[in-house]
Amino acid sequence: MKKDDIKEKTLSRRNFLKTTGAAAAAAMAVGGLAIPAKNAQAAGDALPKKWDETYDVVVIGSGFAGLAAAIEAKNAGANVVVLDKMPVHGGNSIINGGDFSAPGTKMQEANGVKDSAEVMLKDMLRAGLYLNHPENAKMVAYGAKDAFEWSESYIGARYTKLNFHGGHSVKRTHGTITASGSELVNKMYAKTKDLGVKIQLRTKLVKFISNKEGRIVGLEVRKDYKFPDESTGKTAFIKAKKAVVLSSGGFSQDLRLRQIQDPRLTDKFGSTNQPGATGEALMAACIAGAMDVQMDWIQLGPWTSPDEKGFGYVPLFCEPLVGYGLMINPKTGKRFFKETGNRKERADAIIAVGEPVLIMGDSYAVPKQVVPEKLQKGMEIGAIKKFDTLEDVAKNYNIPVDVFLKEVARWNSFVEKKKDDDFGCMIFPDTKPTVVAPFYVARLWPKVHHTMGGLVIDKNAQVIGFDFKPVKGLYAAGEVTGGVHGAVRLGGVAMADCLVFGRVAGKNAADEKAWG
Amino acid sequence: MKKDDIKEKTLSRRNFLKTTGAAAAAAMAVGGLAIPAKNAQAAGDALPKKWDETYDVVVIGSGFAGLAAAIEAKNAGANVVVLDKMPVHGGNSIINGGDFSAPGTKMQEANGVKDSAEVMLKDMLRAGLYLNHPENAKMVAYGAKDAFEWSESYIGARYTKLNFHGGHSVKRTHGTITASGSELVNKMYAKTKDLGVKIQLRTKLVKFISNKEGRIVGLEVRKDYKFPDESTGKTAFIKAKKAVVLSSGGFSQDLRLRQIQDPRLTDKFGSTNQPGATGEALMAACIAGAMDVQMDWIQLGPWTSPDEKGFGYVPLFCEPLVGYGLMINPKTGKRFFKETGNRKERADAIIAVGEPVLIMGDSYAVPKQVVPEKLQKGMEIGAIKKFDTLEDVAKNYNIPVDVFLKEVARWNSFVEKKKDDDFGCMIFPDTKPTVVAPFYVARLWPKVHHTMGGLVIDKNAQVIGFDFKPVKGLYAAGEVTGGVHGAVRLGGVAMADCLVFGRVAGKNAADEKAWG
Repeated sequence: MKKDDIKEKTLSRRNFLKTTGAAAAAAMAVGGLAIPAKNAQAAGDALPKKWDETYDVVVIGSGFAGLAAAIEAKNAGANVVVLDKMPVHGGNSIINGGDFSAPGTKMQEANGVKDSAEVMLKDMLRAGLYLNHPENAKMVAYGAKDAFEWSESYIGARYTKLNFHGGHSVKRTHGTITASGSELVNKMYAKTKDLGVKIQLRTKLVKFISNKEGRIVGLEVRKDYKFPDESTGKTAFIKAKKAVVLSSGGFSQDLRLRQIQDPRLTDKFGSTNQPGATGEALMAACIAGAMDVQMDWIQLGPWTSPDEKGFGYVPLFCEPLVGYGLMINPKTGKRFFKETGNRKERADAIIAVGEPVLIMGDSYAVPKQVVPEKLQKGMEIGAIKKFDTLEDVAKNYNIPVDVFLKEVARWNSFVEKKKDDDFGCMIFPDTKPTVVAPFYVARLWPKVHHTMGGLVIDKNAQVIGFDFKPVKGLYAAGEVTGGVHGAVRLGGVAMADCLVFGRVAGKNAADEKAWG
Repeated sequence: MKKDDIKEKTLSRRNFLKTTGAAAAAAMAVGGLAIPAKNAQAAGDALPKKWDETYDVVVIGSGFAGLAAAIEAKNAGANVVVLDKMPVHGGNSIINGGDFSAPGTKMQEANGVKDSAEVMLKDMLRAGLYLNHPENAKMVAYGAKDAFEWSESYIGARYTKLNFHGGHSVKRTHGTITASGSELVNKMYAKTKDLGVKIQLRTKLVKFISNKEGRIVGLEVRKDYKFPDESTGKTAFIKAKKAVVLSSGGFSQDLRLRQIQDPRLTDKFGSTNQPGATGEALMAACIAGAMDVQMDWIQLGPWTSPDEKGFGYVPLFCEPLVGYGLMINPKTGKRFFKETGNRKERADAIIAVGEPVLIMGDSYAVPKQVVPEKLQKGMEIGAIKKFDTLEDVAKNYNIPVDVFLKEVARWNSFVEKKKDDDFGCMIFPDTKPTVVAPFYVARLWPKVHHTMGGLVIDKNAQVIGFDFKPVKGLYAAGEVTGGVHGAVRLGGVAMADCLVFGRVAGKNAADEKAWG
């Protein structure tokens, strides 16, 4: 290969001179040195000679956050593409429980629940052990109601049930009609397509491309990528004239990364997440100069079952039941923690027990709280079981029966007086004693569910670099970011986070000045 | 300025062609693309036309870890320089308490203490909430004895007292004769100079310089830098033929960085650290592609006093006294937590009290436990006070006197039976009831002390990048690294960590193949 060929293949002479010219000028400013001053992006990347595709805004990820960004960017007049490495859209959003926490809604009012953004923020900070980035947590708490209403009125998602999640101080979680995030994300997907946004699945981010000023100007991707086969796909270069929005989700399925951050989370812990929830896009952003934060706070879902794979049906049985039913340590026959504790508290308590525990509800609470189809499915696969008597429950799980019966009676006495003397579990106005046969029971063992840490963003969803300055041209939203939730994310706040910051990111990305 | 001048000033044509040639070759390997495949270091930096200085190994930081690395690298035959941005050598090491935790030593044997590396490792993991990188924690626990003996026999440091630190299960902390780390670090400094290692103070790292393969090949620094004036210093380029060892310490004094990681740690919390304990060298490593981990675990020292600045004398009064004296909440007149709890437990407990608490010892325990000169100094500045009676103590601190007297009697009853029924404080064989006047008291309020998080290293002290591969040419040791201590560093393990990994880093850096 001749030298000229090589040069031709990598970067044009004109670009080369432009680069060095600017760098030399910068160098002069610091005293006529022999080497240019550099910013966080080192010398920048050699730009591709030819971009295969060009858009104003490139969104990575097609979950709640990515689609919210795409819709807002498109509506602000930008030419937008959404990339997703998986063969289906929706990421974790499509398999999540479909619970949207928002304060001060009409559904709360109709249910007689008094709430405010201020109270929701306090709940988030308390659960987050005050590690939350306060401004960003405030954005979510104060923006959740508007985002929720947007998801109803503009997107058309239907919410039919007001749920409680542990750690919240009131019922403020709005369950979709299907008890699944697919209700929202599929309608967002349809809206995105209706608006004329191009969606490219099987398109995997390889790296961010920065120019000499450290501005993100595009991406190297692999198209026709077949997850998880890293030998697949064809390299292409996508130019982002205005900005990239990274909304690639968390890394709960990334065994290597999660074990660096929290070595306890070996392959002995399953995950509720879709298999593509790995961290390479987040790492690519760090390589491009983005700062990561609080990566070691990885949430275990306390409501998952060892008797089914992934997220499964038991979380949709357990979570509506807390405050209506009781958790039992089968070894002792006794309760061991407050059922309405936050996710971390409960997961820690179950791990301390050392083996799966039980959640139980009766035939008053279960039909009232649990979506029938989900209950049915959970029973079909054997993860939720039905028993005619409490004695049968004890027998099946090898629980000391006398202690167990006394413990259920003790729980029922707490329900009668609306106060749990043992653990301080919240008992709702419509909670009744657990007495109506048959009884429904599932086993619980934690699975890796949500990664609280991620990229540092400001309240404009602008990514911040290791030099404490904005990484120009890069926005981020959703689980790939860190700081909103601090140490512990509360139930239903993922949807609020994704919609609030996804929309902000999309608007601001569209408002960027095009670089070229 | 002419185009040729510009080119001349930035990088030689020969280097340019070499770069693009290799990159194009890499590109061909992935399918004849128009743009080279890149590694974590993007396109690499333009190398300086002229290096101002060249060494085999460049060590950044002149504390325990840096000097240990310099000594070992020099003894392995390398040409070594040590850089430090401050006008004095020693970093935090020179002002620390001089406590070195190591298991199975002769001093432990002489004191009848049975111990092992296995037990020390267990203590580290338990305190670290099992977030510790197990292999690295093991390196420290199993290497501490050898490093301790090296510090005595090779460096000549003198240790005269076996101390206890909260969270350890036995007394395994060896106090220097001066109750200060200066005893060790000054002797290491003298040894480093004796060996012919050049030490350049007032030399601040600006950035790491990588070549096109992502290998660290040198540094951009500012010489004659006058901390903290960022307008000072003259740019110079230092070539590291074999490797750079980063041992720049933690970031407890870096308000901006620590608040991103833990927003609670505002300027309302002082720090025990020297003012130069800021994070810019750590951030520079991340910009060069190094992965950071567990940065949000920032340790508050529970033994610091609001009545003196920085580390001060009270930690040297409080820490030898735990297990011999008692802590009191002045509002209630009662004890509130086990005095021998680990740093995090105690700091959390004091913050929960909401105002400074007291540590108290009598005239049996204090002269026996506390180095006389340090006690004297603490009293001279008024941070430690002496009282003839317990009633005088109560009066001075507005403690409810009746409750207080009963509480001291209760503590004394626990000491008599060698068991603390209230909080499970460890009571040592030679602990006696607190009865001998006069009584010594200091107030305690936490200060930011140690940043557990930092760069990911493997057990060879090799820095790992965001691409999970080694950052070639870069080693790190000491507080700038993360993972050894997990969530909580135990007392005296910093010295062990710095010496174990500093020595490993120095040896491995010297063993690297020179790149050019």
